[in-house]
Amino acid sequence: MSAVEPLGFGPAGPAIEALAEILGERLSTATSVREHHGHDESGWPVMPPDAVAFPESTDEVAAVARICHEHRVPMIPFGTGTAVEGHVQALHGGIAVDLTGMGRILRVSTDDMDCTVEAGVTRKQLNAELRDTGLFFPVDPGADASIGGMISTRASGTNAVRYGTMAENVLSLTVVLADGRVIRTGGRARKTSAGYDLTHLFTGSEGTLGFITEITLRLHGLPEATSAAVCRFPDEDAAVRTVIETIQSGVQVARMELLDALQMRAINAYSRMDYPEAPHLFLEFHGSEAGVREQAELVQALAADNGGGDFTWATYEEERSRLWQARHDAYPAAIQLRPGCRPFTTDVCVPISRLAECIRATREDLKSLPMPTTILGHVGDGNFHVLILCDPDSAEELAMAKQVNEAIVLRALEMEGTCTGEHGIGQGKIDYLYREHGAGVDVMRTIKEALDPLGLMNPGKVLPPRP
Amino acid sequence: MSAVEPLGFGPAGPAIEALAEILGERLSTATSVREHHGHDESGWPVMPPDAVAFPESTDEVAAVARICHEHRVPMIPFGTGTAVEGHVQALHGGIAVDLTGMGRILRVSTDDMDCTVEAGVTRKQLNAELRDTGLFFPVDPGADASIGGMISTRASGTNAVRYGTMAENVLSLTVVLADGRVIRTGGRARKTSAGYDLTHLFTGSEGTLGFITEITLRLHGLPEATSAAVCRFPDEDAAVRTVIETIQSGVQVARMELLDALQMRAINAYSRMDYPEAPHLFLEFHGSEAGVREQAELVQALAADNGGGDFTWATYEEERSRLWQARHDAYPAAIQLRPGCRPFTTDVCVPISRLAECIRATREDLKSLPMPTTILGHVGDGNFHVLILCDPDSAEELAMAKQVNEAIVLRALEMEGTCTGEHGIGQGKIDYLYREHGAGVDVMRTIKEALDPLGLMNPGKVLPPRP
Repeated sequence: MSAVEPLGFGPAGPAIEALAEILGERLSTATSVREHHGHDESGWPVMPPDAVAFPESTDEVAAVARICHEHRVPMIPFGTGTAVEGHVQALHGGIAVDLTGMGRILRVSTDDMDCTVEAGVTRKQLNAELRDTGLFFPVDPGADASIGGMISTRASGTNAVRYGTMAENVLSLTVVLADGRVIRTGGRARKTSAGYDLTHLFTGSEGTLGFITEITLRLHGLPEATSAAVCRFPDEDAAVRTVIETIQSGVQVARMELLDALQMRAINAYSRMDYPEAPHLFLEFHGSEAGVREQAELVQALAADNGGGDFTWATYEEERSRLWQARHDAYPAAIQLRPGCRPFTTDVCVPISRLAECIRATREDLKSLPMPTTILGHVGDGNFHVLILCDPDSAEELAMAKQVNEAIVLRALEMEGTCTGEHGIGQGKIDYLYREHGAGVDVMRTIKEALDPLGLMNPGKVLPPRP
Repeated sequence: MSAVEPLGFGPAGPAIEALAEILGERLSTATSVREHHGHDESGWPVMPPDAVAFPESTDEVAAVARICHEHRVPMIPFGTGTAVEGHVQALHGGIAVDLTGMGRILRVSTDDMDCTVEAGVTRKQLNAELRDTGLFFPVDPGADASIGGMISTRASGTNAVRYGTMAENVLSLTVVLADGRVIRTGGRARKTSAGYDLTHLFTGSEGTLGFITEITLRLHGLPEATSAAVCRFPDEDAAVRTVIETIQSGVQVARMELLDALQMRAINAYSRMDYPEAPHLFLEFHGSEAGVREQAELVQALAADNGGGDFTWATYEEERSRLWQARHDAYPAAIQLRPGCRPFTTDVCVPISRLAECIRATREDLKSLPMPTTILGHVGDGNFHVLILCDPDSAEELAMAKQVNEAIVLRALEMEGTCTGEHGIGQGKIDYLYREHGAGVDVMRTIKEALDPLGLMNPGKVLPPRP
């Protein structure tokens, strides 16, 4: 059991007993289960919860919350465990509430182009279900994350540049509050001016304000035509200039991803591709046949002006899948550059006009590091990541990585950007929230204290201690 | 002075003295000024504030808030006074804070397609400033409202169907809280996962959580081609079916407005047009030359299948302006159908699949009324309005209008829609917030009490009394 007294939490034991009564075998204290729920995909140390609950309905989540609330025990919503900023570690013990048992797609309306799903439904599961409807759900953070988790971190990914992030694609939520009350934040209207926007308040709250158990999402029509291309550039700057000019031209590209030379080497090895080891853009265009052609010609001309090579096209679905799978595997691919390493990820987003300067300066920062690093990202949004591959046993390397991360974050903030474009705060960015939001953090804390006065929901995440 | 004791407000006198000290002549207690600030464009009774302050900077607004907070005097943010649900009436007296003196466009970035404006800037002023940049700000509620007011009500209007509402076009806000603290809710990144989404919490809060003093907005590139058309239909149902089929086809129309036969008669008279007195759709298409042609052909085919007439095109800017001005003047035009009347407006929004049924049933409701009524709206979003022209001296007519409004609202909610698509709650929809949000209203109230514990910000609006 963890040290809870200083924060006023109760011991987990009585809550675990009460939870076992209602959940039976769907409440586990097995070490392996607890370990599995004590970490995400980042290198943050494993901190297992005291037990893991596996509710299968909103009512059961509410019952879990009421019990934990009564016993003053922390609750940590858990999806696929694919977050990357230390979002799910049980820093103060308590109960991990695994929502993957809530995996039903409750309804799909092709007429309204929306659907309602339980929190544990994954994005690939949803898109498989949508296969024959002519619709798809575009938000794609790479991992096959749960929709609930994606809402919690305000996830985005490769095609947010055209279709928006989770924030733009959520219509309403069912939320279980810390005390077990259940609310629905909205209906299915495309727009509303009825009261405070609770939907967006809970979106991105990383499990610190309540459990998201059901989500109503916008869906999008599958484009009539889709075409993907890969383009090599002489240097990163040329690639980024092409991105900036494309965005400023108003062309609505569906995806626009930068991968640096080392990342391309990693992908070649991991995904058995044979691209030149040079900076590349991976692009996708959606629209009518004529529209896609029009967009692609314009971007190709911009790329050529910046010294880019010819587009290598992937028009058939199979080729495209292979291409984007390779992009999505960039993270494991990079890790293989230094097997056994601890990957450290950065995630800033800046106004597009500052992106070239920001990436140039980041490259300079990275030159000081002895470890392998790659730059990649959703550059059409002004969002990019650095992967820094650290020796897990070297405190020195981790310290260097953190120092470079801080330089990147402070630069992004100085450019009116954000310390996290899509990963969330978790533990990893908690030190920068005041730098980004100043007194706004006090307002966030006021809201947190009002909605979760006992501080039971995912404690130690998002909000820094009072200064 | 108003009856404030029961709510714990202080007398306005000492606050007015202190405000006059810092604002001089920019603090007015003149009857005409107070009367002007005691109403919006709806028929809700005039309730003048005790005084009107005209601050000219965020710092001055903060100073006003500190004084009112110290003296426990209500504060009512005031823009152009063009709201329509009784948003600005000083129900408990206090100080109206007129933000039209904050009318500076602080910066425009063509490279990032964003800008920052003070709250008093109007949408037409902003678009005039943008004229030579190739950019525009699309949200268009008809009235030349202030951007601050449009944020406050989460306004939308004719082209939200393509460009989104204020919620989709706001990047960040500067907010003065009830106690005078100033926060900025975000930077200029296109997306962020850094902490709670305060930007969207304040957007649509109707002045009940704080003063919005500066707004950073997304801008959009002027389309290469724009074409507008008017199409006549044999009945409303045929027009609505065309809308539904268009939306479901995935065509991204820029505007798609329904006007019923009586509304067309009103527009003909008011704007000197000569359309047939039949239901019409007003449409606009944005895109490349080829894209606009493609869209228009598709919609024209759908209209023809539904018995619609030929499109009457308005391709030149002057014709288009005249067309949309006529649409925007629908409200004053309708009022002229019964000079001196009190107009009563409804504003529901439903999932598009229910729109035809909803409008048919609404038409049945209206048949019971002896007063003139028109149906019009942003049907591409599932959003429509009924204007009911009441005799201002007839309590009976007003009661009938309210009864029909209630029937329309309850039907929209039953269809998983909303009681207000774009006008906001104000006083007019306050009775329906519980019906729409249930326990969610308690969460809204918890947030209100946490951020404005003295209840000073625009009291009596949005949140209904505890049940």
